[in-house]
Amino acid sequence: MEFKSRLKEYQELVNQELEKYIRKQKCPEEIWNSSMEYSLMAGGKRLRPILVIATYQLFKNNIEICMPYAVAIEMVHNFSLIHDDMPCVDNDDFRHGKLTNHKKYNEATALLAGDGLLNNAYIVISQDLQNTKTKDITKKIQIFTEFSQAIDRMIAGEYIDTEYEGKKISEEYLEYIHKNKTGALLTLCVRMGAILADCEKEDLESLTKYAEKIGLAFQIKDDILSEEGNEKVLGKPVGNDKKMGKCTYVSKYGLQKAKDILSQITKEAIDEISKYGEKAEFLKELALYIQNRNK
Amino acid sequence: MEFKSRLKEYQELVNQELEKYIRKQKCPEEIWNSSMEYSLMAGGKRLRPILVIATYQLFKNNIEICMPYAVAIEMVHNFSLIHDDMPCVDNDDFRHGKLTNHKKYNEATALLAGDGLLNNAYIVISQDLQNTKTKDITKKIQIFTEFSQAIDRMIAGEYIDTEYEGKKISEEYLEYIHKNKTGALLTLCVRMGAILADCEKEDLESLTKYAEKIGLAFQIKDDILSEEGNEKVLGKPVGNDKKMGKCTYVSKYGLQKAKDILSQITKEAIDEISKYGEKAEFLKELALYIQNRNK
Repeated sequence: MEFKSRLKEYQELVNQELEKYIRKQKCPEEIWNSSMEYSLMAGGKRLRPILVIATYQLFKNNIEICMPYAVAIEMVHNFSLIHDDMPCVDNDDFRHGKLTNHKKYNEATALLAGDGLLNNAYIVISQDLQNTKTKDITKKIQIFTEFSQAIDRMIAGEYIDTEYEGKKISEEYLEYIHKNKTGALLTLCVRMGAILADCEKEDLESLTKYAEKIGLAFQIKDDILSEEGNEKVLGKPVGNDKKMGKCTYVSKYGLQKAKDILSQITKEAIDEISKYGEKAEFLKELALYIQNRNK
Repeated sequence: MEFKSRLKEYQELVNQELEKYIRKQKCPEEIWNSSMEYSLMAGGKRLRPILVIATYQLFKNNIEICMPYAVAIEMVHNFSLIHDDMPCVDNDDFRHGKLTNHKKYNEATALLAGDGLLNNAYIVISQDLQNTKTKDITKKIQIFTEFSQAIDRMIAGEYIDTEYEGKKISEEYLEYIHKNKTGALLTLCVRMGAILADCEKEDLESLTKYAEKIGLAFQIKDDILSEEGNEKVLGKPVGNDKKMGKCTYVSKYGLQKAKDILSQITKEAIDEISKYGEKAEFLKELALYIQNRNK
């Protein structure tokens, strides 16, 4: 119960922060702005920004330092969802129980809303760089570099996932998709929080391992939910992966083996951060939440 | 003749530089990389990177300083072309006399190739920031900010252009489209070259005006070519704007008035840089080239 209420607190914090970045002015491009806002505020779990903040809090409390990066990563996540949902990729009509962007508006608007959100993430980063004191510039530039490279890996993973839809796939390529499509961004979140908080090199290493493991767990769980989840709870159709012949952990290993791998990976993730004790309680619970979530 | 050979030299310089940034390694995402390369190297005029370099050369000669930004802006330009050509926007089959990205590959690949090129532009900028000496960091961060904001304006302009296709449009909105869709990026190019070369404030102001005027001229000329250009020379169909009921300078003012405005704006652009004399010869000729080009 404590975890759930803390999660909700974090989600509200992130939502409030996102609201600050939404452009409300009347202008020619008002609908374009609305379409970006529509997807950004459609009620996602905010897992990525929360990872940034919670990791930062392992070391420091002044979370305003990491908020621009929490916002930027949520923009990127929503850019990828909008484009992935489009008819030429996954062709999904619903997301978080609401119409997908191209269904609510139209395909051209969804295309440009996705482009706009990706680019707006970089606007946020550039503005933060402009407000940064000289002594912190180097670490912010490192984050900007890791940010852009993680997005490259995410798009590459999405490309391979799309390319191999309905085709036989090697174990190597399945792992490639999971590591890049979901894992790269989740790892980036944890690393951004840790680097912004000036953590030690060993901390960055163990937190990176934690992130890579929950990233993999997240993807395996997604595959399991897509096979046996509850449509109403998920807010999107179940069984699409199977119908489309999509390569997943479930299609590759079977449902039970996929669940066993998920448990093992979650345990390993938690081991990586056990040295932080009480302070890492939320991150531990978050790993278990990823394992046990039903949406 | 001298201008043409200098233009060609510049184009070759840009093409060589772009080649350095293309990923050649065999990897799962090889086709995604190829699709980005396909559009990037499909033979555009390289007007944007050339503007960066030629403006830089008004003040300094060590052009390696501005090359990453020349590359980044050409990546962004090609991202916008790939997405604009897609069926849900302009639905064009040819570009520079070759199949458009989604026709050569498929829509999903084109979508992700566009996303990838936009993001790769930021990878290039972040890497340049990492290699920048402390004393130059402030100006590079200013450029990064202007870069991200200009792209925002470009996408906004594209959105309005798409939204009003086939609809009556006010003069205000037509101007909005031209200023943002094409103008923002061309102005950015000139400003990046000028700022990187540490020019004076007054130089930046007059060069910005020059850029805004050639940006407008470029768009008016595009509208004229789309009405009366030669299909074989252009490498794309003529008359599409009219057929689609698209708002253009030609549909708004008629062909002759559009040509008169084009001449006037070009003259004004040249006046802005006359104070640089011989040094600005190429930029003057470039303004005339934009006015007189047949593709």
